[in-house]
Amino acid sequence: MIALFTDFGLHDPYVGQLKAVLAQASPAIPVIDLLHEVPAFNAHAGAHLLSALSDGFPPGTVFIGVVDPGVGTERDALVIEADAHLFVGPDNGLFSVCMQRACSVRGWRIEWRPSACSNTFHGRDIFAPIAARLANGERMPDGLSAIDAPRVMFDANDLARVIYIDHYGNAWTGLRGNGVDRHTQLQVAGKALSHAGTFAEVSKGQSFWYVNSSGLVEIAVNRGSAADTLGLRIGDLVGLVPGQARRVH
Amino acid sequence: MIALFTDFGLHDPYVGQLKAVLAQASPAIPVIDLLHEVPAFNAHAGAHLLSALSDGFPPGTVFIGVVDPGVGTERDALVIEADAHLFVGPDNGLFSVCMQRACSVRGWRIEWRPSACSNTFHGRDIFAPIAARLANGERMPDGLSAIDAPRVMFDANDLARVIYIDHYGNAWTGLRGNGVDRHTQLQVAGKALSHAGTFAEVSKGQSFWYVNSSGLVEIAVNRGSAADTLGLRIGDLVGLVPGQARRVH
Amino acid sequence: MIALFTDFGLHDPYVGQLKAVLAQASPAIPVIDLLHEVPAFNAHAGAHLLSALSDGFPPGTVFIGVVDPGVGTERDALVIEADAHLFVGPDNGLFSVCMQRACSVRGWRIEWRPSACSNTFHGRDIFAPIAARLANGERMPDGLSAIDAPRVMFDANDLARVIYIDHYGNAWTGLRGNGVDRHTQLQVAGKALSHAGTFAEVSKGQSFWYVNSSGLVEIAVNRGSAADTLGLRIGDLVGLVPGQARRVH
Repeated sequence: MIALFTDFGLHDPYVGQLKAVLAQASPAIPVIDLLHEVPAFNAHAGAHLLSALSDGFPPGTVFIGVVDPGVGTERDALVIEADAHLFVGPDNGLFSVCMQRACSVRGWRIEWRPSACSNTFHGRDIFAPIAARLANGERMPDGLSAIDAPRVMFDANDLARVIYIDHYGNAWTGLRGNGVDRHTQLQVAGKALSHAGTFAEVSKGQSFWYVNSSGLVEIAVNRGSAADTLGLRIGDLVGLVPGQARRVH
Repeated sequence: MIALFTDFGLHDPYVGQLKAVLAQASPAIPVIDLLHEVPAFNAHAGAHLLSALSDGFPPGTVFIGVVDPGVGTERDALVIEADAHLFVGPDNGLFSVCMQRACSVRGWRIEWRPSACSNTFHGRDIFAPIAARLANGERMPDGLSAIDAPRVMFDANDLARVIYIDHYGNAWTGLRGNGVDRHTQLQVAGKALSHAGTFAEVSKGQSFWYVNSSGLVEIAVNRGSAADTLGLRIGDLVGLVPGQARRVH
Repeated sequence: MIALFTDFGLHDPYVGQLKAVLAQASPAIPVIDLLHEVPAFNAHAGAHLLSALSDGFPPGTVFIGVVDPGVGTERDALVIEADAHLFVGPDNGLFSVCMQRACSVRGWRIEWRPSACSNTFHGRDIFAPIAARLANGERMPDGLSAIDAPRVMFDANDLARVIYIDHYGNAWTGLRGNGVDRHTQLQVAGKALSHAGTFAEVSKGQSFWYVNSSGLVEIAVNRGSAADTLGLRIGDLVGLVPGQARRVH
């Protein structure tokens, strides 16, 4: 399958225009809208989100990743193979966390350009045609040249910041849940939050942290918005205080 | 086909993650996003909406219904067969209006759990895999046990409240249109609204009620927002006053 | 493929209900959500948007176009063939720019009505069933009668107004880029904007115009919102001042 991970939003024609290319070039391949609300212009948050979200996808999935404020400049276009996943998109660090967390990695620069190529929509004009050919089983399409490494690489360790806020107001962090002891308290917005296993374990309106369904530490409020309650925004720092098995209070 | 009816919103990764499971498990089955903006945490409004919306779907449709503030607690997971439709989701009343309005109903508890199951995303981890097996024609999959009745059942009669507000600002009520005489006036927000057959029958800016395309009584304003004009919110009570064939005024 | 171009928004059940009809009637045909945020009730802006956006779609694409404040009145329902594209929707001018910019045009009135037809949702009840039959290769389905011309036709020349604002805040105009010299300055909101080839050519926060990926003149701000920065709204007039090769300032 092909999974789309962009900051295009859902309201504009951009997702549909990209999918029209895929529907022509790889009509038998399912296309999944994974996320079109990656924090705008924020390849760093995007890189950690993509690493967490791509984990659950089957081998052979081709991800088109587009958070691309440098479109139209000299930044390269890449194909990255990280374990059994393929990634197509700009060389701006977006795939670098996935790469560093994989056992086996290879990379290519996309030299190919279509006869008509816009300056501002490489998702439709370059990444989608290449992704369709990869999803169709071509390896590697003409017009790719192997590279040793991308130009932009982010630190792949846990990122102790808010990297995404969902429509319920839950705040995802870049902290992997399997590395955080359940007695740890999370410090954010001047408060210390304790762990709970699920929403219904705390009372209505209470703030807590838990390991979300994508494996990341997330800040939430039962039947409420953590973003509103705590005033959280993308990029906010999160502190960790080793705890002594206190109860949620 | 499989139809999705949730409060996940469209902007987050949740719909895509659920669809990735379906694309793997039942790749030949079309998946329809029926509604992802069911009023949050409101299984009661959701139950009436689902009853109205599911009516138009063909026999054999499998609905995944997720409005699930109790996820991770002891609430059961269900498969419900109501006439020719199947419903998969939590035991919190969401399917109870469909059940009571059907001629023939059967129910099962989902005992099956995947080897890795989150506490907070049963839509992806439990409901989607079971729905895919049902859509593929398995009846009934292993891991289901027949039940006499769900634990939570709502009153299935007409609900004289606002249950949904669309992006135009039209306010859907839980009143079935075929039970309301066209001379009836609707009392809402201190006003009495008359019936019209369609938007263009009233002047620009005028409030009226009509039977919407899903068979429910709906409050609308021609080329305007009824929610803004009348200050309507989900849950607002609606009164019915038998009329004497007055004209829209 | 079938492409959807409507003002239904994405949050309501309307798109899903329409797609359920297509999934039954033409299950093998890909369906693309091109745009569901056409400016509401604005067939004029919609006609110019559709002309620009449909250009990139392959021959044989069937467009369902629904911006339809007159639904339920005596306005006709149409099938239009303009070069290799088919359009299905209301006779309110929405297809008139595509028609006038095509070399070869034919039109039909849709006389067919389903046994159950709502007053307010012809997209689901009339346009989708007809579009599915066209996409399946029927030419022309029973229930169409040839017409000489639609009743409503807009001027198909460039429209010097803002016709769409995307979620980044970029403002699309109805001006075709290939007719505007790159030295021209755009006058809007009391400012004169110069041309740039892509976002990264201007400094952060600077306003400029460029030819967007759909071939239209667009007003943008690098890493910012042109709509917010300049206070732009749909319908705002845009002036053109022939330039003398000044630099972006």
